[in-house]
Amino acid sequence: MSVASEFSREQSGISGSCNLSARIADLQPSPIREILAVIGRPGMVSFAGGLPSPDSFAPLAAEMPANYLQYGPTEGEWPLREMVATRLQALGIRCMPEQVLILSGSQQGIDLVAKLFIDRGTSVAVESPTYLAALQVFRLFGARLSAFEPESAQSTWRDHSPTLAYAIPTFQNPTGHCYSSAQRTALAAACDAHNVVLFEDDPYRDLVYDTCDRTPVCALVKQAPWIYQGSFSKTLAPGLRLGFLAAAPALMPYLVRLKQAADLHSCRVSQYQVLQRLQAADEAGRLLRLTERYRDKRDRFAAQLQRHFADLADWQIPAGGLFFWLQLQRRFDTRRLLPRAIEAGVAFMPGEAFYPLENTGLGTLRLNFSHADEAAAEDGLRKLAELIRTTPSSGAD
Amino acid sequence: MSVASEFSREQSGISGSCNLSARIADLQPSPIREILAVIGRPGMVSFAGGLPSPDSFAPLAAEMPANYLQYGPTEGEWPLREMVATRLQALGIRCMPEQVLILSGSQQGIDLVAKLFIDRGTSVAVESPTYLAALQVFRLFGARLSAFEPESAQSTWRDHSPTLAYAIPTFQNPTGHCYSSAQRTALAAACDAHNVVLFEDDPYRDLVYDTCDRTPVCALVKQAPWIYQGSFSKTLAPGLRLGFLAAAPALMPYLVRLKQAADLHSCRVSQYQVLQRLQAADEAGRLLRLTERYRDKRDRFAAQLQRHFADLADWQIPAGGLFFWLQLQRRFDTRRLLPRAIEAGVAFMPGEAFYPLENTGLGTLRLNFSHADEAAAEDGLRKLAELIRTTPSSGAD
Repeated sequence: MSVASEFSREQSGISGSCNLSARIADLQPSPIREILAVIGRPGMVSFAGGLPSPDSFAPLAAEMPANYLQYGPTEGEWPLREMVATRLQALGIRCMPEQVLILSGSQQGIDLVAKLFIDRGTSVAVESPTYLAALQVFRLFGARLSAFEPESAQSTWRDHSPTLAYAIPTFQNPTGHCYSSAQRTALAAACDAHNVVLFEDDPYRDLVYDTCDRTPVCALVKQAPWIYQGSFSKTLAPGLRLGFLAAAPALMPYLVRLKQAADLHSCRVSQYQVLQRLQAADEAGRLLRLTERYRDKRDRFAAQLQRHFADLADWQIPAGGLFFWLQLQRRFDTRRLLPRAIEAGVAFMPGEAFYPLENTGLGTLRLNFSHADEAAAEDGLRKLAELIRTTPSSGAD
Repeated sequence: MSVASEFSREQSGISGSCNLSARIADLQPSPIREILAVIGRPGMVSFAGGLPSPDSFAPLAAEMPANYLQYGPTEGEWPLREMVATRLQALGIRCMPEQVLILSGSQQGIDLVAKLFIDRGTSVAVESPTYLAALQVFRLFGARLSAFEPESAQSTWRDHSPTLAYAIPTFQNPTGHCYSSAQRTALAAACDAHNVVLFEDDPYRDLVYDTCDRTPVCALVKQAPWIYQGSFSKTLAPGLRLGFLAAAPALMPYLVRLKQAADLHSCRVSQYQVLQRLQAADEAGRLLRLTERYRDKRDRFAAQLQRHFADLADWQIPAGGLFFWLQLQRRFDTRRLLPRAIEAGVAFMPGEAFYPLENTGLGTLRLNFSHADEAAAEDGLRKLAELIRTTPSSGAD
């Protein structure tokens, strides 16, 4: 479905058109939403929703206002949307609170964006390697995947441009790489030049240990449609299952309807908890202490890697995020190694699973440094190195 | 994608085959899941996940175990799955805890089931009228909708049987109807006879005011694949956004993968709150008091309706649930009435939106009786009746 007509410059600030998936033609606005929008008016008697009586709710946290237990807006709590918008504006993204959608974790953003754009055969460009659960969703909706590099995207896309480009420019998963300023500018220019929808996933930005340019690429695009998403899992708590996206205004009505069809709205108890935390007096200090602790963990892990893997693999020290990315000198498929490692009591992520195309990325692995304590990490790395040393070569490698 | 081979009697207790959507062929199991399944083992060092350090979490409810703040299992918390399974067994559904999937509200169950079964053109049978947000999702995935009645489903489906039948047998939304025992048996037999996947949505079952047969139809099917879902929104709190589904064993691996791709897992803070509440000593008493209060609300609302609508509409007194369903004697499209009603300060749901086929159900409306207090309801019903009396006839009606 082409929505050129709906994507006029006036409405959206987007000069081009972009292709939505065929299913979006069947995505009707729900009369529920229109009605729920007015029932909060003073004096309105509502027979409309299926709202339980507020006095029926089982009491939870004593300090939480009881209205958080009722059904809530699909878009999320307004104060939380405002707070996200303020933060994104500070990063250079032109974003009003109306452009913010609270998500049930940023994984949900990938589902919604895939529904919005991907039909069977839709061309989606991704980094190689990239977040494997994004690959899982894109494949589920039938995407034709291709790999891009930011520097060469503009020329790569000259003949056949993808509908959507998915990127994790800041402390990438799995590699930990942080785009240079030139790479950021290049990707934004490529999306602008070919009217490719930029989908920027940015869950790790606040876990920063060294100075580097973290400007969102979405802050640099001039014309291309864009979606930016972040997470509260890495700095607050994953169990809250809360993230957010912001998008070019023209995309918002579709994303909100898709969110409504997916789960009506995100958990309000979690939204309340996140709001409380972000407003807390010690929040900046807490984040600072958190990154200091993680930087220390990263540095200890780097020293341990040096002890056990210097003759086995190459790696960069990540400037942020949660992972080291190793390229083994012997390029065997590390998926073969995993069962033996688990048997020996050490788990890792085979790097091959993160590649969009088969039979690429042999001999790579992703190691998380934030979870295991120092003694356990030492023991685990020693075991893993030993297993790699003793892994027999195979004709199949 | 036909999965006859994977649906052998041995694995699943399902003797027939059923058709999954084409996209399921592209739904790979994620290596993350397999790895996360083992990292909880004693002594395992995990470099695998992207798990934040547990000591980094912002403290929330003091009494909640801190591990609820970490990433959790896609399927949901085991004690909650056990509790749901025990309740479903008591209702006659053959259900082990392994067959339970905790949902981010039962709306999510509709999304997952649609992804599992519906390609463009897939035949889906629904009640007419039915829950409109289910219609929204089925249409989004391209379903060809048809209407069924439980008594005649077996003959209706003789020539062309649908892939999936979606039903709300107990205190239906929007009609409030509760299937008779004969209707329940008939629908189960029809699904068995034609190997139609039964998708039973049961969010209102605990809001019961009069004696009636509430046996889940899923407890009566013998061979057909089945999915049953329920909600914690109506008896605990919608803001928690928590529901559950249970399914025939052969369907579970697909539903779990789809859930993982949708949001990794549901909010653990909500799951903790629900667990605490369901285990509370006064839970049975609380539910009893809740239904008494709602029964009283229903009865007062029925008396008010009698005062204001006796000459305007027909209705049944619902034996449970949250809605009265009115059939106006003058059959005009109540969507025309809604803007004037909202202007007058009273909101309702036009019934026409709940019908799967266009131009059916004219002159119907759904009135919620649980939310407005008695004085507001009296005032709102008086206004609404007056508006209906003064609505001019239109040639288009």
